Amino acid sequence: MSEAGLAVVVLAAGQGSRMQSDLPKVLHRLGGVPLVGHALRAARNLQPEQIVVVTGHGADAVARAVAKLDPEAATVLQAEQLGTGHAVRQALPSLEGFEGRVIILYGDTPFIAQETLDELAAHPADLVVLGFEADDPGRYGRLVVTDRGLERIVEYKDADAATREIVLCNSGVMALQADLLRRLIVGLGNDNAAGEYYLTDLVALARAEGRRADVVICDEAETLGINTRAELAAAEAAFQARARAALMEDGVTLTDPGSVFLALDTVIGRDAVIGPNVVFGPGVTVESGAEILPFCHLEGCHVSEGATVGPFARLRPGAELGTDVHVGNFVEIKNAVLDEGVKVGHLTYLGDAHVGEHTNIGAGTITCNYDGVSKHRTTIGPRAFIGSDTMLVAPVHVGADAMTGSGSTITEDIPDGALAIGRARQVTKPGLATRLMAALRLKKEAR
Amino acid sequence: MSEAGLAVVVLAAGQGSRMQSDLPKVLHRLGGVPLVGHALRAARNLQPEQIVVVTGHGADAVARAVAKLDPEAATVLQAEQLGTGHAVRQALPSLEGFEGRVIILYGDTPFIAQETLDELAAHPADLVVLGFEADDPGRYGRLVVTDRGLERIVEYKDADAATREIVLCNSGVMALQADLLRRLIVGLGNDNAAGEYYLTDLVALARAEGRRADVVICDEAETLGINTRAELAAAEAAFQARARAALMEDGVTLTDPGSVFLALDTVIGRDAVIGPNVVFGPGVTVESGAEILPFCHLEGCHVSEGATVGPFARLRPGAELGTDVHVGNFVEIKNAVLDEGVKVGHLTYLGDAHVGEHTNIGAGTITCNYDGVSKHRTTIGPRAFIGSDTMLVAPVHVGADAMTGSGSTITEDIPDGALAIGRARQVTKPGLATRLMAALRLKKEAR
Amino acid sequence: MSEAGLAVVVLAAGQGSRMQSDLPKVLHRLGGVPLVGHALRAARNLQPEQIVVVTGHGADAVARAVAKLDPEAATVLQAEQLGTGHAVRQALPSLEGFEGRVIILYGDTPFIAQETLDELAAHPADLVVLGFEADDPGRYGRLVVTDRGLERIVEYKDADAATREIVLCNSGVMALQADLLRRLIVGLGNDNAAGEYYLTDLVALARAEGRRADVVICDEAETLGINTRAELAAAEAAFQARARAALMEDGVTLTDPGSVFLALDTVIGRDAVIGPNVVFGPGVTVESGAEILPFCHLEGCHVSEGATVGPFARLRPGAELGTDVHVGNFVEIKNAVLDEGVKVGHLTYLGDAHVGEHTNIGAGTITCNYDGVSKHRTTIGPRAFIGSDTMLVAPVHVGADAMTGSGSTITEDIPDGALAIGRARQVTKPGLATRLMAALRLKKEAR
Repeated sequence: MSEAGLAVVVLAAGQGSRMQSDLPKVLHRLGGVPLVGHALRAARNLQPEQIVVVTGHGADAVARAVAKLDPEAATVLQAEQLGTGHAVRQALPSLEGFEGRVIILYGDTPFIAQETLDELAAHPADLVVLGFEADDPGRYGRLVVTDRGLERIVEYKDADAATREIVLCNSGVMALQADLLRRLIVGLGNDNAAGEYYLTDLVALARAEGRRADVVICDEAETLGINTRAELAAAEAAFQARARAALMEDGVTLTDPGSVFLALDTVIGRDAVIGPNVVFGPGVTVESGAEILPFCHLEGCHVSEGATVGPFARLRPGAELGTDVHVGNFVEIKNAVLDEGVKVGHLTYLGDAHVGEHTNIGAGTITCNYDGVSKHRTTIGPRAFIGSDTMLVAPVHVGADAMTGSGSTITEDIPDGALAIGRARQVTKPGLATRLMAALRLKKEAR
Repeated sequence: MSEAGLAVVVLAAGQGSRMQSDLPKVLHRLGGVPLVGHALRAARNLQPEQIVVVTGHGADAVARAVAKLDPEAATVLQAEQLGTGHAVRQALPSLEGFEGRVIILYGDTPFIAQETLDELAAHPADLVVLGFEADDPGRYGRLVVTDRGLERIVEYKDADAATREIVLCNSGVMALQADLLRRLIVGLGNDNAAGEYYLTDLVALARAEGRRADVVICDEAETLGINTRAELAAAEAAFQARARAALMEDGVTLTDPGSVFLALDTVIGRDAVIGPNVVFGPGVTVESGAEILPFCHLEGCHVSEGATVGPFARLRPGAELGTDVHVGNFVEIKNAVLDEGVKVGHLTYLGDAHVGEHTNIGAGTITCNYDGVSKHRTTIGPRAFIGSDTMLVAPVHVGADAMTGSGSTITEDIPDGALAIGRARQVTKPGLATRLMAALRLKKEAR
Repeated sequence: MSEAGLAVVVLAAGQGSRMQSDLPKVLHRLGGVPLVGHALRAARNLQPEQIVVVTGHGADAVARAVAKLDPEAATVLQAEQLGTGHAVRQALPSLEGFEGRVIILYGDTPFIAQETLDELAAHPADLVVLGFEADDPGRYGRLVVTDRGLERIVEYKDADAATREIVLCNSGVMALQADLLRRLIVGLGNDNAAGEYYLTDLVALARAEGRRADVVICDEAETLGINTRAELAAAEAAFQARARAALMEDGVTLTDPGSVFLALDTVIGRDAVIGPNVVFGPGVTVESGAEILPFCHLEGCHVSEGATVGPFARLRPGAELGTDVHVGNFVEIKNAVLDEGVKVGHLTYLGDAHVGEHTNIGAGTITCNYDGVSKHRTTIGPRAFIGSDTMLVAPVHVGADAMTGSGSTITEDIPDGALAIGRARQVTKPGLATRLMAALRLKKEAR
């Protein structure tokens, strides 16, 4: 990193009309996170002094997303979309006084590798452009490089035959000194077909005043931008394949890797086992040696060592499973801490709760956490035994070593070691089932 | 379309012995619909005066399926399978008096494009054969075309070396004038190795009386016929890939397209979000802006704008979700209308029901719609609050703004604004849980 | 098979450090079964007199797994890993007195075809090596074959340029007479870079005493060994593709084959239908004509003809579904026999139970089989009707033709034809819901 510090400008104003969507393009998700989140994450990893996101289409929604993804990032509005040069200009007031290096990234280009950005940040030239050698250069802008470095960027339509032979293409990503950026950007013209101000023209302006420009070359795949839903789907497939391979290299067992859907920030420990058909939303950590059985959906939760989850389990935000916890089938856990050794085997909803260690939660248990107006908490002590089909009407507390009878609705706190029961006694009426069924059948036939 | 009107004959009599199945081949499903349903759909889109399906193997089952898929289509039985010419002849009595154009399709050839069929229907020649240029012509029949149009169809085994060089092959699909068909078909012979009457011989007969025959050329992929389960699986993969791509082009968000299984008639609105691992059976419409979370199974249902479904939800036929309805995890909805803003979050079965707007259905609620003999309906008014684990023993009505206590079994109607409760009071016995557990442990050790 | 009988030695001592795992390599799973289980299955199919597994890294865990997978197989410990020759030597004491043919297999090489092994077993030469023609021979050992048979195996690093041109490579698998093995193995040296005893050196020793050695050639894919998790994932993909294709050839309907995960021993009958997203653990048989709907998880269970399962059902070990049984959504069946025609439609847990024919189990039914210390059984007679949300507190018996009222907790046996009910009567309080909601809202606003 240059000693003078870094700032990152993320361009995120485009409409993405080819997405056929009312959602701004940079809010479409990849690996469970909006596209702009990938750029923000890469930017933040550079440890910059400032991050400024330039918004435009859907500016309010994008600004809200940015505030959530990276609360320290600033957003500025580009009210009219007049080109990349114009977009960056909107960011300059936010960088007032900043004297280091500015890197310009794109909200719809999620794959640039951290090493590539590090190389851009550390490069000594006054202006550095990120280029790539294209398999099929097509209509990309070409980078003209001589032994003096990068001479200029030539748009495809302005390129002569010789220039079109060049395979080194412009990614759009650029790094340059803040003072140089401020001085040159006012000189950008919009004398072109689109009437837009192009960032690429900065190269010629810099060279015109004798500054050194250069190129950092990355893999073409890093520069993949998203313009259509089909491209987004392809990018997702690429992201998932890479993320799965990385987990396997780190010693995670993916029984059927192709059916596991990962998020950008999924963390899984060595020798954890992830079965087929598991979906990770954002914010999940799974410790070493835990097992996630097939058909699970996890989001914003933590699974500790030795815990087993599923099949058919849903862990929602705030679910924290301690060591050796077992969460079984058709179980939903939301905003609930389960201490070591808790078992929740079947058909249960635990929400807004704390369950003490080694407590057993019977099948069909429900924390009735909502009264129609507000949410309330349920707390259960250690070593308790909650009978099947217990309704825990929150706010309520079940003591340590306490029990509930199956089929009970619990509305009052239960002291430690006590048994609470809230159900009617069984009454058995001989022969009545036979008579009832006969009557129902007659009635049906009569209709 | 020719002004004289159209009729379509669908040949669906084959056994498909290579399918290794007792099910007639044309009843194997593709995109959730029997193969013959694809042909029927294409046929119906031509707005013909008549559709006649020729059945043979499994005729009763095929006829029932046809009656369900397209009640206006007729079926005729080909008692013996004596060739395509013989099959079409069985259809002629059903077309008595029809004077327009007859198109002959196949029940096991699901991919012919509508534009191709339109072109066939509109073509001015007396007889038109659908051909394709084969990548590997192999043992297909060859179409011999001169500047006078289609001269004849030559079976591979009868073709000389020069004819085998022809890459234009016969798909079997044909269109011709009804009167021509009637006159020529009686002249078909079965003097061949199989002793069968071949439709292809009509070309030579038509040319022999000076009629003009011609070829419409389609993409080879359109003519793909299904003969084995492996071919069916490949066809399904092709169908799904195309259907997913079409949805994305229309602006639907498929988070992980490869894990979404679509039906032939799935309709999804722009900016609806379909998560990973969602299966659509036939008859589903999802409006713009709705969200289907992972692991959902939908069939014969409607999801309105702003509704969210899943994860782990099942919508069965007759489920109609109004605007902003929320159906959560481990919830099954069958033959039930949920008005605007209804929430059904967890572990619930709603069947044969109507739920008024903004009603909240607690976790574990069950409509007890079956008494062992008949099914009954449950109706719930608007803004009601159904407590967790409420059993609604149908027929039963819950009024507007009414409530049920959690753990209640409701057997009688509840007036508007009333609270109904049907559960025993909680009794708490200090120390009893501790003593009970100790006794159980002793008992176990004693064994 | 040679008349003198067969013995199989399975080498399973390696650490597999490239797996990045604390689990011994041969215990990683493929098709739901530890890798060593594939070798054991292939070995057992040869009907050998003895199977000896040589363990090393994680020896205890591997020995336990072997005892479970094939209780008749012996295990011996190779305390130090001094090469394949040393490993086989550890197995010899277990083969004392055995005079037939010994085949040496590998615990991490799961794909060798049964026909290949049969050919090895039946081959008349004194020593037979399994070879394969490599697409890219790379660093494999080369098999030098003349008209006298296999001359020697040359390690890549010892091979001259001419030998490196040989594409016939050594798989490591070998078959030879027990007496020859015993005599030659003591002559193996470890004068090589690794200081290990190599089994391959037996060839030269055998030839030196004039024995005939030969090669059996198999497909390269059969010799695939597993060294990394990425290789395991690729092997799993290959296994699944093959298993799916084999089922389809046998007439099983896989609606979306790529989303079905099979185990090594999955058995499915003709015209059974397996929907998308079904996971088979070990030990499942599905009879002809049964249907498994999407999102099911099956393990150690049996599904009879005409039964339908799912979607979202879990069948655990010991689940036995009779003819025409229906198990619906969000249902878990464990160690339970369901006789003909039983219906369990929704949100139910049946564990440690027997249910008689044509009994209907209502939604939300739970067998409360665990009292906190021990498990107990539930038995239900034929033609019973279990109302929704019935808690069956085991041990308990429900008689034939008996009924339970919905919402009942059943703690005592119910005689045949009797109705049992255990719930409070509904009390309805006019206007109370409206007042309660108003109060709750006020309370919330006050906060």
